[in-house]
Amino acid sequence: MLPYPPSIRNAISHLSRLPGIGQKTAERLAMHLLHVPDRAVHELARSLVDLKKNTRMCSVCFTLSDTPVCAICGDPDRNASLLCVVEGPTEVMAIEKTAAFKGVYHVLHGVLSPMDGIGPDDIRIRELVDRVKKGIVKEIVLATDTRVEGEATAAYLVEVLKPFPVTVTRIASGMPAGGEVRYSDPVTLKNAMEKRYAL
Amino acid sequence: MLPYPPSIRNAISHLSRLPGIGQKTAERLAMHLLHVPDRAVHELARSLVDLKKNTRMCSVCFTLSDTPVCAICGDPDRNASLLCVVEGPTEVMAIEKTAAFKGVYHVLHGVLSPMDGIGPDDIRIRELVDRVKKGIVKEIVLATDTRVEGEATAAYLVEVLKPFPVTVTRIASGMPAGGEVRYSDPVTLKNAMEKRYAL
Repeated sequence: MLPYPPSIRNAISHLSRLPGIGQKTAERLAMHLLHVPDRAVHELARSLVDLKKNTRMCSVCFTLSDTPVCAICGDPDRNASLLCVVEGPTEVMAIEKTAAFKGVYHVLHGVLSPMDGIGPDDIRIRELVDRVKKGIVKEIVLATDTRVEGEATAAYLVEVLKPFPVTVTRIASGMPAGGEVRYSDPVTLKNAMEKRYAL
Repeated sequence: MLPYPPSIRNAISHLSRLPGIGQKTAERLAMHLLHVPDRAVHELARSLVDLKKNTRMCSVCFTLSDTPVCAICGDPDRNASLLCVVEGPTEVMAIEKTAAFKGVYHVLHGVLSPMDGIGPDDIRIRELVDRVKKGIVKEIVLATDTRVEGEATAAYLVEVLKPFPVTVTRIASGMPAGGEVRYSDPVTLKNAMEKRYAL
């Protein structure tokens, strides 16, 4: 057991349960907090409690939100006929940071993964179909990962969405920005070659 | 600005002010906290507030403590005649982890550093002298860093402690455990050579 007094040991113990925070980092953080103003520590603690208390799911797209309808779904400047399907809220944030997408989202909260027992009823596919049925959506961009589960989920959604008068698209596959051909894996290179475009 | 809702943005902002926690790590931590039970987040927040509220300085050795006198100073099995002088509470913990020292400590809360305007009156040297005057201490181990300020502080303390009937010692200099001679810096090697001992 560490020779710290109980309050310090307790804080270190809680901090070290966070992902990526080991024993040494937790000790360093605790020592840091002992040297910052009381107010700053209270604000940090409060922000963590509020994070849990105030964050819910958007009732339209199911991303994380402080409000019943998220800022994106509630923005009249967003194109509601262009719907991007993603695995989780983290993917929404990643795409938002690009500022390259002006449509709206649908968060599945997972991908199909028979190995983990996750089937179509375990992710928000029914809610996606319900949205499509309303007739506002014209194009659905499938932006699940380009890994096995993401590709399988995209393939499944193509089938599910076939009865509806919507265009279903998939995010492009190819070389990542800054990628080096010599170090690229064969699947990426194959995709990049097959999806080559005229300049 | 990040496209997160305010509560998440606020938590990320506070987390990213911690040392070694960048924007991406703060985002990852916030996402993690959204998925752990409410209770765990409350306990974490509470532990940080308690850390500040309950931690004070030991009135004897000035290390961090939950109680007026720390567990080390209050332990009758520790040798009160053997006093180890260190820069801060972190050094106390580092030495305690070795389980190789059974004496007590004196925490200076700093080292002499004229460049930073830190002189003898800015660290707890007067309190050290007061302890020595009580006549219980027989040996003082100077365990400040072997860097410029630590060495200067040790040299200064040797002078300050000269009038008293105590043995003043310094932690050994030499090769660190697992050290490689070929990669050791000249000062370390010189020390290791000069302080060589018979086998």
